[in-house]
Amino acid sequence: MADPSEREFPEQNEEIMQATYRALREHGYADLTIKRIAAEYGKSTAAVHYYYDTKEELLAAFLDHLLERFVDSIHAVETTDPEKRLELLLDMLLVKPQENPDLSVALLEMRSQAPYKDAFRDRFKQNDEYIRYMLKAVINHGIDEGVFDDVDADHVTRALMTIVDGGRTRAVVLDDLSALETARETAREYAEATLR
Amino acid sequence: MADPSEREFPEQNEEIMQATYRALREHGYADLTIKRIAAEYGKSTAAVHYYYDTKEELLAAFLDHLLERFVDSIHAVETTDPEKRLELLLDMLLVKPQENPDLSVALLEMRSQAPYKDAFRDRFKQNDEYIRYMLKAVINHGIDEGVFDDVDADHVTRALMTIVDGGRTRAVVLDDLSALETARETAREYAEATLR
Repeated sequence: MADPSEREFPEQNEEIMQATYRALREHGYADLTIKRIAAEYGKSTAAVHYYYDTKEELLAAFLDHLLERFVDSIHAVETTDPEKRLELLLDMLLVKPQENPDLSVALLEMRSQAPYKDAFRDRFKQNDEYIRYMLKAVINHGIDEGVFDDVDADHVTRALMTIVDGGRTRAVVLDDLSALETARETAREYAEATLR
Repeated sequence: MADPSEREFPEQNEEIMQATYRALREHGYADLTIKRIAAEYGKSTAAVHYYYDTKEELLAAFLDHLLERFVDSIHAVETTDPEKRLELLLDMLLVKPQENPDLSVALLEMRSQAPYKDAFRDRFKQNDEYIRYMLKAVINHGIDEGVFDDVDADHVTRALMTIVDGGRTRAVVLDDLSALETARETAREYAEATLR
Protein backbone atom coordinates (compact mmCIF):
# COMPACT_ATOMS: atom_id res chain seq x y z
CA MET A 1 0.00 0.00 0.00
CA ALA A 2 1.41 3.38 -1.00
CA ASP A 3 1.58 6.15 1.57
CA PRO A 4 -1.95 7.58 1.29
CA SER A 5 -0.63 10.97 2.34
CA GLU A 6 0.99 11.26 -1.07
CA ARG A 7 -2.35 11.29 -2.85
CA GLU A 8 -3.84 14.44 -4.26
CA PHE A 9 -6.91 15.88 -2.61
CA PRO A 10 -9.51 17.56 -4.79
CA GLU A 11 -9.17 21.33 -4.74
CA GLN A 12 -11.15 22.94 -1.91
CA ASN A 13 -12.24 26.48 -1.36
CA GLU A 14 -10.38 27.30 1.86
CA GLU A 15 -12.67 30.14 2.92
CA ILE A 16 -15.77 28.00 2.52
CA MET A 17 -14.08 25.22 4.50
CA GLN A 18 -13.39 27.66 7.35
CA ALA A 19 -16.99 28.88 7.18
CA THR A 20 -18.24 25.27 7.29
CA TYR A 21 -16.05 24.60 10.28
CA ARG A 22 -17.54 27.53 12.21
CA ALA A 23 -21.11 26.71 11.13
CA LEU A 24 -20.73 23.03 12.15
CA ARG A 25 -19.37 23.98 15.56
CA GLU A 26 -22.25 26.37 16.09
CA HIS A 27 -25.21 24.46 14.65
CA GLY A 28 -24.12 20.82 14.57
CA TYR A 29 -24.70 18.64 11.52
CA ALA A 30 -28.49 18.13 11.48
CA ASP A 31 -29.25 21.86 11.60
CA LEU A 32 -26.55 22.85 9.16
CA THR A 33 -27.77 24.53 5.99
CA ILE A 34 -26.04 26.09 2.99
CA LYS A 35 -27.64 29.33 4.15
CA ARG A 36 -25.87 29.15 7.50
CA ILE A 37 -22.57 28.31 5.84
CA ALA A 38 -23.07 31.24 3.45
CA ALA A 39 -23.71 33.51 6.42
CA GLU A 40 -20.34 32.50 7.92
CA TYR A 41 -18.71 32.84 4.50
CA GLY A 42 -20.12 36.38 4.25
CA LYS A 43 -21.51 35.76 0.77
CA SER A 44 -24.71 34.52 -0.86
CA THR A 45 -25.83 30.90 -0.99
CA ALA A 46 -25.30 31.14 -4.76
CA ALA A 47 -21.63 31.87 -4.08
CA VAL A 48 -21.41 28.65 -2.06
CA HIS A 49 -23.32 26.67 -4.69
CA TYR A 50 -20.87 27.93 -7.31
CA TYR A 51 -18.33 25.57 -5.70
CA TYR A 52 -20.52 22.86 -4.17
CA ASP A 53 -23.83 21.62 -5.59
CA THR A 54 -25.20 20.08 -2.41
CA LYS A 55 -24.68 20.18 1.33
CA GLU A 56 -23.54 16.56 1.18
CA GLU A 57 -20.89 17.36 -1.43
CA LEU A 58 -19.68 20.32 0.60
CA LEU A 59 -19.44 18.24 3.77
CA ALA A 60 -17.60 15.45 1.96
CA ALA A 61 -15.08 18.12 0.87
CA PHE A 62 -14.92 19.27 4.49
CA LEU A 63 -14.00 15.75 5.61
CA ASP A 64 -11.24 15.75 2.95
CA HIS A 65 -10.12 19.08 4.35
CA LEU A 66 -9.90 17.70 7.91
CA LEU A 67 -7.91 14.70 6.73
CA GLU A 68 -5.58 16.94 4.78
CA ARG A 69 -4.91 19.06 7.85
CA PHE A 70 -4.29 15.91 9.86
CA VAL A 71 -1.83 14.68 7.21
CA ASP A 72 -0.01 18.02 7.40
CA SER A 73 0.27 17.81 11.17
CA ILE A 74 1.59 14.24 10.95
CA HIS A 75 4.19 15.37 8.41
CA ALA A 76 5.26 17.99 10.93
CA VAL A 77 6.17 15.27 13.46
CA GLU A 78 9.93 15.18 13.06
CA THR A 79 11.06 12.45 15.41
CA THR A 80 11.66 9.02 13.93
CA ASP A 81 12.15 7.39 17.33
CA PRO A 82 9.40 4.72 17.34
CA GLU A 83 8.40 5.12 20.98
CA LYS A 84 8.25 8.91 20.88
CA ARG A 85 6.52 8.92 17.51
CA LEU A 86 3.82 6.52 18.68
CA GLU A 87 3.22 8.69 21.75
CA LEU A 88 2.90 11.81 19.61
CA LEU A 89 0.47 10.16 17.17
CA LEU A 90 -1.74 9.00 20.03
CA ASP A 91 -1.62 12.51 21.51
CA MET A 92 -2.77 13.93 18.18
CA LEU A 93 -5.65 11.46 18.11
CA LEU A 94 -6.80 11.73 21.72
CA VAL A 95 -5.42 14.85 23.36
CA LYS A 96 -5.86 17.39 20.59
CA PRO A 97 -9.65 16.74 20.12
CA GLN A 98 -10.13 17.88 23.73
CA GLU A 99 -9.61 21.44 22.47
CA ASN A 100 -12.59 21.27 20.18
CA PRO A 101 -15.57 19.37 21.63
CA ASP A 102 -18.10 21.10 19.35
CA LEU A 103 -16.43 19.74 16.25
CA SER A 104 -16.43 16.27 17.83
CA VAL A 105 -20.19 16.50 18.31
CA ALA A 106 -20.72 17.34 14.62
CA LEU A 107 -18.30 14.61 13.53
CA LEU A 108 -20.12 11.91 15.49
CA GLU A 109 -23.36 12.99 13.81
CA MET A 110 -21.69 12.65 10.42
CA ARG A 111 -20.18 9.30 11.38
CA SER A 112 -23.64 8.05 12.35
CA GLN A 113 -24.84 9.00 8.85
CA ALA A 114 -22.16 6.91 7.11
CA PRO A 115 -24.62 4.00 6.60
CA TYR A 116 -26.86 6.35 4.60
CA LYS A 117 -24.32 8.47 2.74
CA ASP A 118 -21.63 6.78 0.69
CA ALA A 119 -19.65 10.00 0.34
CA PHE A 120 -19.29 10.17 4.13
CA ARG A 121 -18.52 6.48 4.52
CA ASP A 122 -15.80 6.68 1.87
CA ARG A 123 -14.13 9.57 3.69
CA PHE A 124 -14.28 7.91 7.11
CA LYS A 125 -12.82 4.75 5.63
CA GLN A 126 -10.02 6.67 3.91
CA ASN A 127 -9.32 8.59 7.07
CA ASP A 128 -9.15 5.38 9.10
CA GLU A 129 -6.92 3.69 6.53
CA TYR A 130 -4.55 6.61 6.52
CA ILE A 131 -4.21 6.77 10.30
CA ARG A 132 -3.77 3.00 10.52
CA TYR A 133 -1.11 3.19 7.82
CA MET A 134 0.83 5.77 9.86
CA LEU A 135 0.49 3.82 13.12
CA LYS A 136 1.53 0.59 11.43
CA ALA A 137 4.60 2.22 9.91
CA VAL A 138 5.73 3.34 13.37
CA ILE A 139 5.11 -0.08 14.89
CA ASN A 140 6.94 -1.90 12.09
CA HIS A 141 9.81 0.55 12.38
CA GLY A 142 9.96 -0.16 16.13
CA ILE A 143 9.99 -3.91 15.45
CA ASP A 144 12.83 -3.49 12.93
CA GLU A 145 14.80 -1.40 15.44
CA GLY A 146 14.27 -4.02 18.12
CA VAL A 147 12.49 -1.66 20.55
CA PHE A 148 9.08 -3.31 20.02
CA ASP A 149 8.25 -7.00 20.20
CA ASP A 150 7.50 -8.81 16.94
CA VAL A 151 3.72 -8.30 17.15
CA ASP A 152 0.92 -8.49 14.58
CA ALA A 153 1.19 -4.79 13.66
CA ASP A 154 -2.11 -4.82 11.78
CA HIS A 155 -4.04 -6.09 14.80
CA VAL A 156 -2.30 -3.75 17.26
CA THR A 157 -3.12 -0.83 14.97
CA ARG A 158 -6.79 -1.77 14.78
CA ALA A 159 -6.87 -2.25 18.55
CA LEU A 160 -5.43 1.24 19.10
CA MET A 161 -7.97 2.74 16.69
CA THR A 162 -10.75 0.93 18.58
CA ILE A 163 -9.58 2.68 21.75
CA VAL A 164 -9.34 6.03 19.91
CA ASP A 165 -12.85 5.75 18.46
CA GLY A 166 -14.25 4.57 21.78
CA GLY A 167 -12.81 7.57 23.60
CA ARG A 168 -14.17 9.97 20.98
CA THR A 169 -17.65 8.44 21.01
CA ARG A 170 -17.83 8.39 24.80
CA ALA A 171 -16.67 12.01 25.12
CA VAL A 172 -19.59 13.13 22.95
CA VAL A 173 -22.34 10.76 24.09
CA LEU A 174 -21.61 11.05 27.80
CA ASP A 175 -20.60 14.75 27.56
CA ASP A 176 -17.39 13.91 29.36
CA LEU A 177 -14.04 15.09 28.02
CA SER A 178 -12.24 12.91 30.56
CA ALA A 179 -13.27 9.95 28.37
CA LEU A 180 -10.50 11.08 26.00
CA GLU A 181 -7.95 11.03 28.82
CA THR A 182 -9.12 7.59 29.87
CA ALA A 183 -8.73 6.41 26.27
CA ARG A 184 -5.25 7.96 26.07
CA GLU A 185 -4.25 6.08 29.21
CA THR A 186 -5.84 2.86 27.90
CA ALA A 187 -3.90 3.19 24.63
CA ARG A 188 -0.68 3.70 26.61
CA GLU A 189 -1.34 0.62 28.73
CA TYR A 190 -2.32 -1.47 25.71
CA ALA A 191 0.78 -0.43 23.73
CA GLU A 192 3.01 -1.04 26.74
CA ALA A 193 1.54 -4.52 27.30
CA THR A 194 1.64 -5.69 23.69
CA LEU A 195 4.71 -3.96 22.24
CA ARG A 196 7.19 -4.50 25.07
CA MET B 1 -23.75 3.00 44.73
CA ALA B 2 -26.79 0.71 44.86
CA ASP B 3 -27.18 -1.96 42.22
CA PRO B 4 -28.90 0.04 39.47
CA SER B 5 -30.59 -3.13 38.27
CA GLU B 6 -32.79 -2.99 41.32
CA ARG B 7 -34.42 0.22 40.22
CA GLU B 8 -37.91 0.29 38.77
CA PHE B 9 -38.32 1.03 35.11
CA PRO B 10 -41.35 3.03 34.03
CA GLU B 11 -44.07 0.82 32.62
CA GLN B 12 -43.71 0.23 28.88
CA ASN B 13 -46.13 -1.01 26.31
CA GLU B 14 -44.40 -4.19 25.18
CA GLU B 15 -46.13 -4.40 21.79
CA ILE B 16 -45.22 -0.83 20.92
CA MET B 17 -41.63 -1.50 22.00
CA GLN B 18 -41.49 -4.49 19.64
CA ALA B 19 -42.99 -2.38 16.85
CA THR B 20 -40.41 0.36 17.51
CA TYR B 21 -37.64 -2.21 17.36
CA ARG B 22 -38.78 -3.42 13.93
CA ALA B 23 -39.36 0.11 12.61
CA LEU B 24 -35.91 1.26 13.79
CA ARG B 25 -34.19 -1.68 12.16
CA GLU B 26 -36.00 -1.02 8.92
CA HIS B 27 -35.93 2.79 8.70
CA GLY B 28 -33.13 3.89 11.01
CA TYR B 29 -33.57 6.75 13.44
CA ALA B 30 -33.73 9.84 11.22
CA ASP B 31 -36.53 8.44 9.04
CA LEU B 32 -38.51 6.98 11.90
CA THR B 33 -42.01 8.38 12.35
CA ILE B 34 -44.87 7.58 14.69
CA LYS B 35 -46.74 6.60 11.53
CA ARG B 36 -44.18 3.94 10.70
CA ILE B 37 -44.20 2.64 14.26
CA ALA B 38 -48.01 2.54 14.17
CA ALA B 39 -47.84 0.56 10.92
CA GLU B 40 -45.65 -2.05 12.63
CA TYR B 41 -47.93 -1.97 15.67
CA GLY B 42 -50.90 -2.64 13.41
CA LYS B 43 -52.93 0.21 14.92
CA SER B 44 -53.50 3.92 14.35
CA THR B 45 -51.03 6.68 15.26
CA ALA B 46 -53.60 7.78 17.86
CA ALA B 47 -53.21 4.39 19.52
CA VAL B 48 -49.46 4.99 19.79
CA HIS B 49 -49.97 8.56 21.01
CA TYR B 50 -52.27 7.24 23.71
CA TYR B 51 -49.12 5.86 25.38
CA TYR B 52 -46.40 8.23 24.15
CA ASP B 53 -46.86 11.92 23.39
CA THR B 54 -43.84 12.36 21.18
CA LYS B 55 -41.38 10.32 19.14
CA GLU B 56 -38.63 11.39 21.53
CA GLU B 57 -40.57 10.16 24.55
CA LEU B 58 -41.29 6.86 22.82
CA LEU B 59 -37.63 6.39 21.90
CA ALA B 60 -36.49 7.23 25.43
CA ALA B 61 -38.84 4.47 26.61
CA PHE B 62 -37.32 2.20 23.97
CA LEU B 63 -33.84 2.84 25.39
CA ASP B 64 -35.20 1.94 28.85
CA HIS B 65 -36.60 -1.21 27.29
CA LEU B 66 -33.22 -2.19 25.80
CA LEU B 67 -31.47 -1.60 29.12
CA GLU B 68 -34.12 -3.65 30.90
CA ARG B 69 -33.59 -6.54 28.51
CA PHE B 70 -29.85 -6.26 29.04
CA VAL B 71 -30.31 -6.28 32.82
CA ASP B 72 -32.42 -9.45 32.47
CA SER B 73 -29.76 -11.16 30.40
CA ILE B 74 -27.07 -10.22 32.92
CA HIS B 75 -29.19 -11.63 35.72
CA ALA B 76 -29.36 -14.85 33.73
CA VAL B 77 -25.56 -15.23 33.93
CA GLU B 78 -25.25 -17.79 36.66
CA THR B 79 -21.54 -18.28 37.11
CA THR B 80 -19.86 -16.31 39.89
CA ASP B 81 -16.35 -17.29 38.78
CA PRO B 82 -14.73 -13.88 38.14
CA GLU B 83 -12.77 -14.90 35.04
CA LYS B 84 -15.69 -16.70 33.38
CA ARG B 85 -18.14 -13.99 34.34
CA LEU B 86 -15.97 -11.24 32.86
CA GLU B 87 -15.65 -13.23 29.61
CA LEU B 88 -19.42 -13.67 29.43
CA LEU B 89 -20.12 -9.98 30.05
CA LEU B 90 -17.69 -8.96 27.32
CA ASP B 91 -19.32 -11.49 24.98
CA MET B 92 -22.70 -9.95 25.69
CA LEU B 93 -21.31 -6.51 24.90
CA LEU B 94 -19.31 -7.34 21.79
CA VAL B 95 -20.36 -10.69 20.34
CA LYS B 96 -24.12 -10.46 20.68
CA PRO B 97 -24.47 -7.12 18.77
CA GLN B 98 -23.03 -8.89 15.72
CA GLU B 99 -26.42 -10.56 15.33
CA ASN B 100 -28.20 -7.28 14.87
CA PRO B 101 -26.25 -4.72 12.82
CA ASP B 102 -29.38 -2.76 11.84
CA LEU B 103 -30.16 -1.97 15.46
CA SER B 104 -26.54 -0.87 15.96
CA VAL B 105 -26.92 1.62 13.09
CA ALA B 106 -30.03 3.15 14.69
CA LEU B 107 -28.40 3.22 18.11
CA LEU B 108 -25.33 5.11 16.86
CA GLU B 109 -27.69 7.69 15.32
CA MET B 110 -29.43 8.06 18.66
CA ARG B 111 -26.11 8.26 20.49
CA SER B 112 -25.00 11.06 18.17
CA GLN B 113 -28.18 12.98 19.15
CA ALA B 114 -27.39 12.80 22.88
CA PRO B 115 -25.88 16.34 22.84
CA TYR B 116 -29.24 17.67 21.61
CA LYS B 117 -31.70 15.48 23.51
CA ASP B 118 -31.41 15.24 27.27
CA ALA B 119 -33.76 12.25 27.41
CA PHE B 120 -31.35 10.27 25.21
CA ARG B 121 -28.25 11.44 27.06
CA ASP B 122 -29.78 10.46 30.41
CA ARG B 123 -30.49 6.93 29.13
CA PHE B 124 -27.06 6.43 27.61
CA LYS B 125 -25.46 7.62 30.84
CA GLN B 126 -27.64 5.30 32.93
CA ASN B 127 -26.89 2.43 30.60
CA ASP B 128 -23.16 3.08 30.81
CA GLU B 129 -23.28 3.40 34.60
CA TYR B 130 -25.13 0.14 34.92
CA ILE B 131 -22.72 -1.80 32.73
CA ARG B 132 -19.73 -0.29 34.49
CA TYR B 133 -21.28 -1.20 37.82
CA MET B 134 -21.59 -4.85 36.72
CA LEU B 135 -18.05 -5.00 35.31
CA LYS B 136 -16.60 -3.37 38.42
CA ALA B 137 -18.40 -5.84 40.68
CA VAL B 138 -16.81 -8.74 38.78
CA ILE B 139 -13.35 -7.17 38.89
CA ASN B 140 -13.59 -6.39 42.62
CA HIS B 141 -14.81 -9.90 43.28
CA GLY B 142 -11.81 -11.26 41.34
CA ILE B 143 -9.47 -9.06 43.38
CA ASP B 144 -11.04 -10.32 46.63
CA GLU B 145 -10.68 -13.92 45.45
CA GLY B 146 -7.05 -13.32 44.56
CA VAL B 147 -7.46 -14.25 40.87
CA PHE B 148 -7.03 -10.66 39.66
CA ASP B 149 -4.29 -8.20 40.61
CA ASP B 150 -5.20 -5.32 42.92
CA VAL B 151 -5.95 -2.87 40.11
CA ASP B 152 -7.90 0.40 39.95
CA ALA B 153 -11.21 -1.31 39.13
CA ASP B 154 -12.86 1.96 38.14
CA HIS B 155 -10.21 2.74 35.54
CA VAL B 156 -10.10 -0.81 34.14
CA THR B 157 -13.88 -0.72 33.79
CA ARG B 158 -13.81 2.57 31.90
CA ALA B 159 -11.00 1.27 29.71
CA LEU B 160 -13.03 -1.84 28.83
CA MET B 161 -16.08 0.31 28.00
CA THR B 162 -13.87 2.49 25.78
CA ILE B 163 -12.93 -0.63 23.83
CA VAL B 164 -16.59 -1.74 23.70
CA ASP B 165 -17.82 1.63 22.42
CA GLY B 166 -14.96 1.85 19.94
CA GLY B 167 -15.80 -1.54 18.46
CA ARG B 168 -19.49 -0.63 18.18
CA THR B 169 -18.81 2.73 16.53
CA ARG B 170 -16.32 1.25 14.08
CA ALA B 171 -18.63 -1.60 13.09
CA VAL B 172 -21.30 0.92 12.04
CA VAL B 173 -19.17 3.70 10.55
CA LEU B 174 -16.84 1.42 8.59
CA ASP B 175 -19.59 -1.13 7.80
CA ASP B 176 -17.36 -3.85 9.16
CA LEU B 177 -18.66 -6.37 11.68
CA SER B 178 -15.13 -7.69 12.21
CA ALA B 179 -14.52 -4.46 14.17
CA LEU B 180 -16.53 -6.09 16.98
CA GLU B 181 -14.30 -9.17 16.91
CA THR B 182 -11.20 -6.97 16.97
CA ALA B 183 -12.64 -5.11 19.97
CA ARG B 184 -13.44 -8.40 21.71
CA GLU B 185 -9.83 -9.55 21.22
CA THR B 186 -8.53 -6.15 22.37
CA ALA B 187 -10.66 -6.34 25.53
CA ARG B 188 -9.30 -9.84 26.19
CA GLU B 189 -5.69 -8.68 25.75
CA TYR B 190 -6.27 -5.60 27.90
CA ALA B 191 -7.91 -7.57 30.71
CA GLU B 192 -5.16 -10.20 30.55
CA ALA B 193 -2.42 -7.57 30.72
CA THR B 194 -3.90 -5.48 33.53
CA LEU B 195 -5.72 -8.03 35.70
CA ARG B 196 -3.09 -10.78 35.81
